[in-house]
Amino acid sequence: MLAVHLENGCVEVRDIPAPARPAGYALIRMLCAGICNTDLELKRGYYGFAGTPGHEFVGEVVQAGRSELIGRRVVGEINLSCGHCDWCRRDMGRHCPHRDVLGIVRHPGAFSELLTLPESNLHIVPDEIPTERAVFTEPLAAACEILDQAALPCAATIAVLGDGKLGLLIGFVLNAHGYRVHLYGRHPEKLRLAAAAGIRTIAVNEAPDNAWPVGEYQWVVEATGSSQGLKQAVEIVRPRGVVILKSTVHGTVGFDTAPVIVNELTLVGSRCGRFEPALHLLEHDLIPVESMISVRRPLSEAPEAFEQAARKGVLKVLLENHGRPSR
Amino acid sequence: MLAVHLENGCVEVRDIPAPARPAGYALIRMLCAGICNTDLELKRGYYGFAGTPGHEFVGEVVQAGRSELIGRRVVGEINLSCGHCDWCRRDMGRHCPHRDVLGIVRHPGAFSELLTLPESNLHIVPDEIPTERAVFTEPLAAACEILDQAALPCAATIAVLGDGKLGLLIGFVLNAHGYRVHLYGRHPEKLRLAAAAGIRTIAVNEAPDNAWPVGEYQWVVEATGSSQGLKQAVEIVRPRGVVILKSTVHGTVGFDTAPVIVNELTLVGSRCGRFEPALHLLEHDLIPVESMISVRRPLSEAPEAFEQAARKGVLKVLLENHGRPSR
Repeated sequence: MLAVHLENGCVEVRDIPAPARPAGYALIRMLCAGICNTDLELKRGYYGFAGTPGHEFVGEVVQAGRSELIGRRVVGEINLSCGHCDWCRRDMGRHCPHRDVLGIVRHPGAFSELLTLPESNLHIVPDEIPTERAVFTEPLAAACEILDQAALPCAATIAVLGDGKLGLLIGFVLNAHGYRVHLYGRHPEKLRLAAAAGIRTIAVNEAPDNAWPVGEYQWVVEATGSSQGLKQAVEIVRPRGVVILKSTVHGTVGFDTAPVIVNELTLVGSRCGRFEPALHLLEHDLIPVESMISVRRPLSEAPEAFEQAARKGVLKVLLENHGRPSR
Repeated sequence: MLAVHLENGCVEVRDIPAPARPAGYALIRMLCAGICNTDLELKRGYYGFAGTPGHEFVGEVVQAGRSELIGRRVVGEINLSCGHCDWCRRDMGRHCPHRDVLGIVRHPGAFSELLTLPESNLHIVPDEIPTERAVFTEPLAAACEILDQAALPCAATIAVLGDGKLGLLIGFVLNAHGYRVHLYGRHPEKLRLAAAAGIRTIAVNEAPDNAWPVGEYQWVVEATGSSQGLKQAVEIVRPRGVVILKSTVHGTVGFDTAPVIVNELTLVGSRCGRFEPALHLLEHDLIPVESMISVRRPLSEAPEAFEQAARKGVLKVLLENHGRPSR
């Protein structure tokens, strides 16, 4: 079968043996998979990764212990947790210290004709959700995680810093939940997508320095993907306010903790989320995810797709698998 | 009257005119004042400070609009807020953007024979609290602030990093509230004070690296006063755990945000607190603050007192004013 191999900054498509299906796992034919910023960071050497990346996918179950899964379209939670530790018993397997992570830590990822995942990680995709929408389930769940972590009051005004893929999804999710979103970004064409959904957008390049709203917001989401984002978030949040940190920036950033302490800020790190709310939003067509698809390419063109995904202004790049897998 | 003058790293005692008492203010004779790490940082150039420092004090009211205050021993909240803004109306004058701060921002401080403060800032010291205990009200209130900010569950185990003045007070306060405190520090003689109060202490120098309790604590208070403290706190907190930031470290620190996001940590900045809980703890003799007094000197010896306060191993240095003020 075809599978992407990523190592030392190089993306190749290789023909490798199909994976065996362990007991309790499903064998899944990938239908569509999304390239995420984490994949681009894996390419840059984050985690010293070597193998098949890919953790945003929709697939069709080919083999499974539970026969009702066979032939169904599924999405899959990316954390393969042990099932036994304190975290797992508290339904927080996303923090299981023994976890593998699909396409990130040990477990081969979804940029492959076939992949395996524990059946307990799978969610059947409702028929109402087309495959190219369902592929946004995982990043949308990460955006929804904010709502699980922060007790946002009804109709609160929330600043979102960053108009990349995650920033836009966060803006869409908060907007869909009735919050007043102020989305700050640098890319007019991306801000237009947010504006089309009714989000108030602010072009950062155009804002003169003295228009930067210092101490304005009770809630700020930092999703710039930049090492400068945290500093900006701390500037615009008000005393006793909350900054939700979504950007994983590789390496150490310079950070002045004094305003965090003087203004008694709360910083909340936020990562993966539950799939149920994301599927609900997609099923009811509440998030215009299609507007974020920049490129669709067959799996065999993964090297070109990775290059496109890294270009400025490009949003979601999808890899598609139309053929029957060569077992 | 005598007053300390601090400028360009130099501490002098000067003879200056007594302050005028504005309407609504009390004129207060300082009885005892404590040198805090913030005072040492002001000396190092923090805030570009020039003037009379001192914000931990007990005094006797000499003149006031409210006659019932005259002759009483008082402590005073250090934030002089505007009284009219949103913050003040929500009883959060500590975050009033227009505030002056006693001995830190604009308003002359307590290292002086006489000082002024708004009468609304004053709390009468109960007779049960000797002056040398009451002088700990302000830093103790800062330690109590943690309890106002974090919903600590009953009998939780809390790691406190740092055995300096603030770290010890935090340990004492949490211990007095029934929490299980693990105090990490580098100074055997300071750790002994904590151990004498029933706190479990861990000498950091002696702990081999592999004994460092990675991911152990749900709650960590960072009070090391060191730029390394935040990194250590993030190491020992568990996923979804809370780190309370108490150390003001001047300047930028190198900080890897990845574990904050991956482990979905919450970081909470914490500064000043309400005086009521601190006075309650002191009145009921629940905090062994006297054990923390290293040095007592007359106000006239402030330069020597500042030098002593900066020495390794020294805890609280008190300045005392026994004489009648020379008006």
